[in-house]
Amino acid sequence: MVEQPSSKRPGGAEPPAAIHRRSHARARDLERYAGLFAARTRAMRSSAMRDLMEITARPEVISLAGGLPDTSTFPPQSFAAQMTRIAQESSAQALQYGPTEGFAETKRCIREVMRAEGMDPDPEDVIVTTGGQQAIDLVAKTLIDPGDVVIAEAPTYPGAVPVFSSYEARTLQVEVDEDGMRISELEALLDRLAADRLRPKLIYSVPSFQNPAGVSMSADRRRRLVEVARERELLVVEDNPYGLLRYEGSAEQPLYELDGGDYVLYIGTFSKILSPGIRLGWLCAPPPVMEKVVLGKQATDLCTSTLTQYFVREYFAEGRWLTYIADLREIYRARRDAMLDALESFFPAQASWSRPEGGLFCWATLPSYIDTTDLLAKALRENVAFVPGAAAFVDGRGGSSMRLNFSGSNEDQIREGIRRIGRVITEQVELYERITNVPPASSASRPGAAGLREGSSQAATATGDPSSARIRPGAAGLGEASTGGGSVVPFRRSDA
Amino acid sequence: MVEQPSSKRPGGAEPPAAIHRRSHARARDLERYAGLFAARTRAMRSSAMRDLMEITARPEVISLAGGLPDTSTFPPQSFAAQMTRIAQESSAQALQYGPTEGFAETKRCIREVMRAEGMDPDPEDVIVTTGGQQAIDLVAKTLIDPGDVVIAEAPTYPGAVPVFSSYEARTLQVEVDEDGMRISELEALLDRLAADRLRPKLIYSVPSFQNPAGVSMSADRRRRLVEVARERELLVVEDNPYGLLRYEGSAEQPLYELDGGDYVLYIGTFSKILSPGIRLGWLCAPPPVMEKVVLGKQATDLCTSTLTQYFVREYFAEGRWLTYIADLREIYRARRDAMLDALESFFPAQASWSRPEGGLFCWATLPSYIDTTDLLAKALRENVAFVPGAAAFVDGRGGSSMRLNFSGSNEDQIREGIRRIGRVITEQVELYERITNVPPASSASRPGAAGLREGSSQAATATGDPSSARIRPGAAGLGEASTGGGSVVPFRRSDA
Repeated sequence: MVEQPSSKRPGGAEPPAAIHRRSHARARDLERYAGLFAARTRAMRSSAMRDLMEITARPEVISLAGGLPDTSTFPPQSFAAQMTRIAQESSAQALQYGPTEGFAETKRCIREVMRAEGMDPDPEDVIVTTGGQQAIDLVAKTLIDPGDVVIAEAPTYPGAVPVFSSYEARTLQVEVDEDGMRISELEALLDRLAADRLRPKLIYSVPSFQNPAGVSMSADRRRRLVEVARERELLVVEDNPYGLLRYEGSAEQPLYELDGGDYVLYIGTFSKILSPGIRLGWLCAPPPVMEKVVLGKQATDLCTSTLTQYFVREYFAEGRWLTYIADLREIYRARRDAMLDALESFFPAQASWSRPEGGLFCWATLPSYIDTTDLLAKALRENVAFVPGAAAFVDGRGGSSMRLNFSGSNEDQIREGIRRIGRVITEQVELYERITNVPPASSASRPGAAGLREGSSQAATATGDPSSARIRPGAAGLGEASTGGGSVVPFRRSDA
Repeated sequence: MVEQPSSKRPGGAEPPAAIHRRSHARARDLERYAGLFAARTRAMRSSAMRDLMEITARPEVISLAGGLPDTSTFPPQSFAAQMTRIAQESSAQALQYGPTEGFAETKRCIREVMRAEGMDPDPEDVIVTTGGQQAIDLVAKTLIDPGDVVIAEAPTYPGAVPVFSSYEARTLQVEVDEDGMRISELEALLDRLAADRLRPKLIYSVPSFQNPAGVSMSADRRRRLVEVARERELLVVEDNPYGLLRYEGSAEQPLYELDGGDYVLYIGTFSKILSPGIRLGWLCAPPPVMEKVVLGKQATDLCTSTLTQYFVREYFAEGRWLTYIADLREIYRARRDAMLDALESFFPAQASWSRPEGGLFCWATLPSYIDTTDLLAKALRENVAFVPGAAAFVDGRGGSSMRLNFSGSNEDQIREGIRRIGRVITEQVELYERITNVPPASSASRPGAAGLREGSSQAATATGDPSSARIRPGAAGLGEASTGGGSVVPFRRSDA
């Protein structure tokens, strides 16, 4: 006798939906929960990107905000074929729980990906995670006590900042320039910390096609960073979501390979080379660290989706995954070029931006009197979005910079999006110049004029500089003060 | 020009795999990382269930250990049809990132499930999580500071203990009997805590077909628990993975419905009614709590798998989900009956066990001189597994109890598994009786003899009782001492 569970509703006097709504409205009014929240929630802030995702879901908005790969390029017939095969051959297993560490088959796929970048991890050192984001979270969970120091790049991946905050870390940032994190500045910071008997729990870096700056760490700096980690016995977390998305130039060795996996933990993901919707990433760590990470993952979500792991297994069995990435590279290279062209055409002379050899992002810096958080509101009225630079800093810097994504929109959309953003910037620049009586930038100061490069360098100094006039001062900071020095390093204007 | 990334390997003197292995071996030897670990890792313990999953993956082992639903009952052709539809109609979206809160379509499916149990949540109060486990983790992350008190049932879900530990909570447990958590004992504990100016951050309960005890909370206790929460302004976390898996009797109202969603947070999951491999669960919480939970999830894994959310959407669109649950109920009822029959046949007279009306588990308690952690080693040699009871306590109690799962094995396996466990128990009992010169239990002391029931009650007193002789004393505890009183409440032997 199978009972219909829906017939179980007790026939109370009042309809339960109404009861629920009523008490619910009361709950909305009262802040009675506040006293119950953990201290870490005070430091939790929303990642600007995630908030934007909601707004930019509107079809009329051209979003250069997200870090979205173009999943429409993935062949639906391949998707259907893999899933049909799973259903026919291993439906019960694909729907069941799996091991916390992930399946051996998934680790074999991960090894293939890492080998394509010159690494060869021991499968024992690999754990499959629910996206690369969970890998960052698990490392932080394993290492960070409240008040611990974490070192990140300036700017850094906006999604990493809330992770470190949620473990109440004190995040310090080290400048990035065209060659990636300035290791000499890192060493100076480590010396200052050591003088205070402080030792960072980890150094977080995206050395290849950095999010958000779009730059890559030079070979010399990579070697030096690994040496510094060994000399000082510090852990480096290498986050490498984009390494295979190179559009020109040649790759440098990953930190993980240079180090041999002792002091460098490595984070990879299928999000940018296959699909973020499957939530599959991974972490490589030496055994003593991995042991704690596995315990952390057990408590956090037991295991990563079996179904999506089977999907990856079937996809890799097809043997076309490198060809698909090659296709993605062609598509994204064209989009990057479209963005760089559009920036030349539509951004005013006072702007500068990075010229990434790979990855998903350009980083543009505007005159310091422009607040990009403010600018975003104006841009959204024009149905275009970007990530304001402040999201990539913990101390309110970056307020005149913006992250521009070129992987998630087609070339026409990119051109139109940059045109619209360029227009609102130009309005701001003209307004500023009218107020301050600065003569408008002449056409002679377009790229190629060395003087302008200096000028745009000047324009890109720290938004925190109190001497710089700002139409709207002070983008809301995200917390910790940086000891990493003063200014946001500007990027040379493209010579193209 | 697309470069083959695999050609990028720098031609160093030594093969990199060798470099890696060498330094790696060194890393295994040195415990140089220990000083870097967060304090929370000291309290992290492996959930017994997860460790067992590895052992029990061997095909020759009959596992009554896991909490695995039988996913082989899900029709593969339905799986294939849904996935083909997704591939044809929404491949790009299903592979893309989704909102942190989950898709509105997923929330509609969740609402259908909750309505089937007499609840009607506001979609705004629902967040889709990476399994029910993540919901527990996010609640803990939102509420628990180190040293905070959490109240759980005794015994409690073994997978919840590591979550609370990972946030350095002090977990106290309140006895469960045939009617669920003893609310009068809860109130006494709350009074004692209040006298010390302590207020628990949350009360964690599985009121229906409790994991591991298999019992359900009575209507009276449910009402009183909700009153207590309101009177004392305390949050209750109702974890309800099995509510729809009822094999007899009639359902009581969920705490969430009784409360109206102010003080009761609700955790649900698709794991037991569809698939755990899709890692889809959910949490219902009032807006002030939800706001923090969403921030926590952003930092933890950005969003739950889009692909598996689309799978659920398509599955629910088919309109057969309640029929599938009805099928599951038939299957699991027969398995439960097979287990209860086998327990009668093969467990010695000194054992007692719960007789669950639903869910996935029986809870059996043996004489106090038997340590079930020890017994498990013997059982594994007989290729059969269960979860030792100590995993369900934070203080080393439960050492003579075991959790037995009947959903993941067929009736023959259940009968054979219980036969093998019964044999190793009987050996232990006979050994004890030889050592202590107790006359062996006569056949007259089989169920139905009231005296035996008393006897088995005696046998089920706390393993921590120093006066009870134990063949092997002291199963390793999991940490915190309980103020919840002395003894593990035994379950009446079935009258069947």
